[in-house]
Amino acid sequence: MFELTARDPPSLARAGTLRLAHGEVATPAFVPLATKGSVRTLAPREVAALGYQMVLGNTFHLLLAPGPQLIERFGSLHEFMRWRGPIITDSGGFQVFSMGHGNVADEIKGRGREGVRPGGATARRAGQRARPGPSRGQAGAILQIAERGVRFRSPIDGRELVLEPETSMAVQAALGSDIALTLDECTPFHVTRDYTARSTERTHRWLQRCLRWHERHGPPGQAVYGIVQGGVERDLRLQSAAAVAASGAHGIAVGGTLGREKAQMYEVVGWVTRELERLAPERPRHLLGIGEVDDLIAGVELGIDTFDCAMPTRLARHGVALVPRPAERWRVDLLKSRWRAAAEPVLDGCRCPTCREGFSRAYLHHLLKVGEPTAGRLLTVHNLSFIAALMADLRSAIVAGRLAEAAGALRAGARPGEALRAA
Amino acid sequence: MFELTARDPPSLARAGTLRLAHGEVATPAFVPLATKGSVRTLAPREVAALGYQMVLGNTFHLLLAPGPQLIERFGSLHEFMRWRGPIITDSGGFQVFSMGHGNVADEIKGRGREGVRPGGATARRAGQRARPGPSRGQAGAILQIAERGVRFRSPIDGRELVLEPETSMAVQAALGSDIALTLDECTPFHVTRDYTARSTERTHRWLQRCLRWHERHGPPGQAVYGIVQGGVERDLRLQSAAAVAASGAHGIAVGGTLGREKAQMYEVVGWVTRELERLAPERPRHLLGIGEVDDLIAGVELGIDTFDCAMPTRLARHGVALVPRPAERWRVDLLKSRWRAAAEPVLDGCRCPTCREGFSRAYLHHLLKVGEPTAGRLLTVHNLSFIAALMADLRSAIVAGRLAEAAGALRAGARPGEALRAA
Repeated sequence: MFELTARDPPSLARAGTLRLAHGEVATPAFVPLATKGSVRTLAPREVAALGYQMVLGNTFHLLLAPGPQLIERFGSLHEFMRWRGPIITDSGGFQVFSMGHGNVADEIKGRGREGVRPGGATARRAGQRARPGPSRGQAGAILQIAERGVRFRSPIDGRELVLEPETSMAVQAALGSDIALTLDECTPFHVTRDYTARSTERTHRWLQRCLRWHERHGPPGQAVYGIVQGGVERDLRLQSAAAVAASGAHGIAVGGTLGREKAQMYEVVGWVTRELERLAPERPRHLLGIGEVDDLIAGVELGIDTFDCAMPTRLARHGVALVPRPAERWRVDLLKSRWRAAAEPVLDGCRCPTCREGFSRAYLHHLLKVGEPTAGRLLTVHNLSFIAALMADLRSAIVAGRLAEAAGALRAGARPGEALRAA
Repeated sequence: MFELTARDPPSLARAGTLRLAHGEVATPAFVPLATKGSVRTLAPREVAALGYQMVLGNTFHLLLAPGPQLIERFGSLHEFMRWRGPIITDSGGFQVFSMGHGNVADEIKGRGREGVRPGGATARRAGQRARPGPSRGQAGAILQIAERGVRFRSPIDGRELVLEPETSMAVQAALGSDIALTLDECTPFHVTRDYTARSTERTHRWLQRCLRWHERHGPPGQAVYGIVQGGVERDLRLQSAAAVAASGAHGIAVGGTLGREKAQMYEVVGWVTRELERLAPERPRHLLGIGEVDDLIAGVELGIDTFDCAMPTRLARHGVALVPRPAERWRVDLLKSRWRAAAEPVLDGCRCPTCREGFSRAYLHHLLKVGEPTAGRLLTVHNLSFIAALMADLRSAIVAGRLAEAAGALRAGARPGEALRAA
């Protein structure tokens, strides 16, 4: 299901094609979130027109509403949301554990002393640390966590629900996704090594249960990715990579905390991908929840094939546009009053529909200030277009054997779509 | 600027073409609201693609933010919002008086006893009585109302602002709209005849001041519509129609309360349009704030050329789709749980982008329930498309001399776009 077409040593980068039940995905690729069955503010046809071939649906959210039975009645999530291409579904683990990881830690460690943040927030997803708005739909509560799985209260209607490895796979089977992820516990950063070790082992046992269920009941053509955990402990990460590689999962996702800062994140990802180069070089690799511009470039250099992240779309809805300004984290906040009268577009020369139409920063600033919903839409279009052009640059560069130059140009502020020309 | 191309007696209906500074508008036509500079959830190009040739900007809201100076710097509202076609701007009177009509009535009547509703809400716009959501941006306060104009506190930042006939025209000149409306007091329903009479006379004096200002300072090519007031009093409406017709305004708008129910609304509108048939048959007529399906049909029969209303777009954002079900007010509320599993589209056979894409009612219900912004957008597209098809039917029917049949078919539940075929 994965064909590698190019490599660009000495980096670990690869270009390839995922051949999935609903179509192909050229990699490396970014996967926009359709968490609850829609890429926010966009219709599926528009997402495809921006150059995307796959989106990510969320098992936890779709389990809560509208429920897998309903979606199954429509055939699959593709039919339900009218997205014709491939869909990857998250396992729901991240979301359910995010509702109160304190409890989980308490349970395993026998009442937590340290290591878990007060709010119980986990940090599997580096992109979310910078989330500008409040998280929604995660006000439920974990009732019990055990070897079998997690029992929790729905944040929507208070129902008691259970998420076990088999449940997660059954939901993903009902959704009919092209790629299902196995259920994992997303280990937070601030836990002890011992906690991480025990949690990672349980994740491996859950992986086995997921694969067993899928072997018997999984829909034909659905690929399964196992998830590498192990926190920021090198030996645990290597063990986890080996466990997932040995499991026979079709692909391998990297999850869990990736550390406190980007340097550590790249180090942790590098441990895993170098080990996978040895153990399972031909299998596709997904990096969960990472999508800042510099992380995408670094992730590709480290041999990651696909990424998903809320960042480009969430930032857009909060008025932040992506621009080639590395010193400003590739961001410009159009809500800032300095743009009040700015006639310039979001990005000069950008070929996205928003910039081509000639909307000024002043106009977008105005729409954002008065709360007009068109603003979030126009910026979502720009940001997703920016990321699509970035990934296309990286793909072309790998094929041309010029990734180092392209990455250098992008890190120096080249506009996506022009990295190779600028290099 | 207005060419009548067809009539269809015995109704008062006409078809024609408005030739405005930024292009032509085939009438009768519905004008979608771009109150604060955008048709909510849509980009201008998308509004045009749905068949619309003109949008309506709001002087009050654009005066508050981003302010006329800023928009003028961009050339005009067209350039600022990137809408290439004609724009009509409301005078701001309706919005400023809506902030607290109680005060106005008190001032004129020497402390109000009856006639003004407790909340101070006025009912110029029949469509708004059914508004499903809370009104926004109207939490300011009127500080003083006098012959000169209105002094009020900005609901955005508390600034004291003044709206006088000259201010309104100056703002509309800065916006560079194709059609400016003169400042009027929107007389509410629950006031005495005496109050309505005095208010209407003041509106006529304001009309004169607006026209004088426009003569000297108005932008070249900008048309001005005067507004007929007079409440539900036949003689006052006729006097007002005569005053506006005599004023030399390029076009004539019908504003103020149109009564308590639809039958009375049609009666009041008919008084005015029949009088205008006598006094100014060639001048275009706009009905302010009316846009329910049956009102559009009746308004066209009564000789109205253009309409604006928040209804189609506002309903969409609240989950209500327009469908050819006259007995249900042409509405279906997709938030209702009966659509939870409905595979049918919003409207079978509808040619709008939302229905053609095959989104089910169940999918839209789900998106609405979980608050996904794509829902409002998909329904806005459907509702505006529905109204565009309805108006196109009415135009064709007038030209074919078959309005009675088409109107009959539509009132019997024909799908817009098929009224003549169904007739």
